[in-house]
Amino acid sequence: MAKEFSLPVRVYIEDTDAGGIVYYVNYLKFFERARTELMRTLGQDKAAVRDDGQLYVVTDASIRYRRPARLDDALQVTASVTAVGAATMTFRQAVLRDGVTLASGEVGVACVDSNSGKPRRLDIALRRRLIAAMDTEQQDGEPT
Amino acid sequence: MAKEFSLPVRVYIEDTDAGGIVYYVNYLKFFERARTELMRTLGQDKAAVRDDGQLYVVTDASIRYRRPARLDDALQVTASVTAVGAATMTFRQAVLRDGVTLASGEVGVACVDSNSGKPRRLDIALRRRLIAAMDTEQQDGEPT
Amino acid sequence: MAKEFSLPVRVYIEDTDAGGIVYYVNYLKFFERARTELMRTLGQDKAAVRDDGQLYVVTDASIRYRRPARLDDALQVTASVTAVGAATMTFRQAVLRDGVTLASGEVGVACVDSNSGKPRRLDIALRRRLIAAMDTEQQDGEPT
Amino acid sequence: MAKEFSLPVRVYIEDTDAGGIVYYVNYLKFFERARTELMRTLGQDKAAVRDDGQLYVVTDASIRYRRPARLDDALQVTASVTAVGAATMTFRQAVLRDGVTLASGEVGVACVDSNSGKPRRLDIALRRRLIAAMDTEQQDGEPT
Repeated sequence: MAKEFSLPVRVYIEDTDAGGIVYYVNYLKFFERARTELMRTLGQDKAAVRDDGQLYVVTDASIRYRRPARLDDALQVTASVTAVGAATMTFRQAVLRDGVTLASGEVGVACVDSNSGKPRRLDIALRRRLIAAMDTEQQDGEPT
Repeated sequence: MAKEFSLPVRVYIEDTDAGGIVYYVNYLKFFERARTELMRTLGQDKAAVRDDGQLYVVTDASIRYRRPARLDDALQVTASVTAVGAATMTFRQAVLRDGVTLASGEVGVACVDSNSGKPRRLDIALRRRLIAAMDTEQQDGEPT
Repeated sequence: MAKEFSLPVRVYIEDTDAGGIVYYVNYLKFFERARTELMRTLGQDKAAVRDDGQLYVVTDASIRYRRPARLDDALQVTASVTAVGAATMTFRQAVLRDGVTLASGEVGVACVDSNSGKPRRLDIALRRRLIAAMDTEQQDGEPT
Repeated sequence: MAKEFSLPVRVYIEDTDAGGIVYYVNYLKFFERARTELMRTLGQDKAAVRDDGQLYVVTDASIRYRRPARLDDALQVTASVTAVGAATMTFRQAVLRDGVTLASGEVGVACVDSNSGKPRRLDIALRRRLIAAMDTEQQDGEPT
């Protein structure tokens, strides 16, 4: 069963657009806030990471919009780890209001050297925690 | 003594710029989040207000930057009411980290008709609550 | 052969993040600027559309990031129509610098009623122009 | 007479908010785009500057909002140099539509060392060009 992380996010005017709803691009910002907090629970502090000469970059993202979020909405933004590679992570994410999914998607992240931009193996301790945080059915055969 | 409202704000990558710090424009977004939550404590729900045909618009803003905020910082964003007119409110605001002021400023807001854009008197109950929320030394002689 | 629309976009500090590169979420804003200008060449003025009670909403988006864009870069952002349905349009989009693709993706847009949010058939004249703007090899058999 | 720089800016959906108008915070982004292009005409390329170990930071900003800008508006954003110090510059800025001022303000910028954050004297050649770009009536007695 997936271990899903959930972050409450309030919609402010900065998040909306002239359609009177949350600007669709901003859901990706909400996604990132939830991923960041999920990573924090796994012991990963972004600022610390950068000092170490590595950087996490988003390699791809896809999102499907179902219902609009509106000003003042109290949203839940979820993130769960669905795949872990040598230098990569994949997250399934969603934005919900009162248990109803407004948008869902998938985001791929790679660890790279902050100077060269080349892929860099995930820290072994972090990698173990990411795998432990994955959906257990997907963990079978996953190397540790 | 001022009754200051304070909102915790976490800095995410979306808030930063290539200088490695929080993009200075975004402090005004932080200011607004704190004002919005302060207004909520005064019974003012933005969405509800808009149904009523009125709208709050920012008429002027000024901000002074002292020290940069950085990725992952846990900030406190403050807002306090410093003046209340027939159709206007003035807020003093600041962004702090560990008690140190990073930026401070003032924001003026007016209540307008959402169709005509013309000034509209503040709701009397809200106006009373705003005045009650003001710095007590400034309240002397303030009409209710 | 695809009729590709291309819009020059300059990278400003507002577009960047603490990684020193363009914040990946902002590529979707660049995509939208190019789509908006492409639609304008097809006679579609957004403001006008909204008066008519219809609204274009993004239904899904996917993007792959290859190389980072940086502060001051002079980018080209492209948009081409790849599919046209009764109430929907699909666009292929990319961000390039000096002819090199930095990011590419696909965006789906639906025409909806601005009140009910329900799908609404595309204006017949617009639909014809969209189809004419499509890749000619894909036009075969496309109903008008 | 002031030598005013003017940059055309188109309003896209990303710039708007649920009030149906340009989100007031974004005028400061428009201001910066115009300042950046003005600086470019003075031979100042931001990316180049950063390699040199110096950084321009905004020290303070003030803005007054008069009329709202709307989706699809074709705006003119102006910037002119009003003061030049040893390590500082002051700009007067405005956003106009069809010659009518929608917002106006003032922005202070300081040159700092990108590592220490301490003030750093403006490059002498740039400083001369900034002074030459100032309002001529204000130039009297300005040291070079």
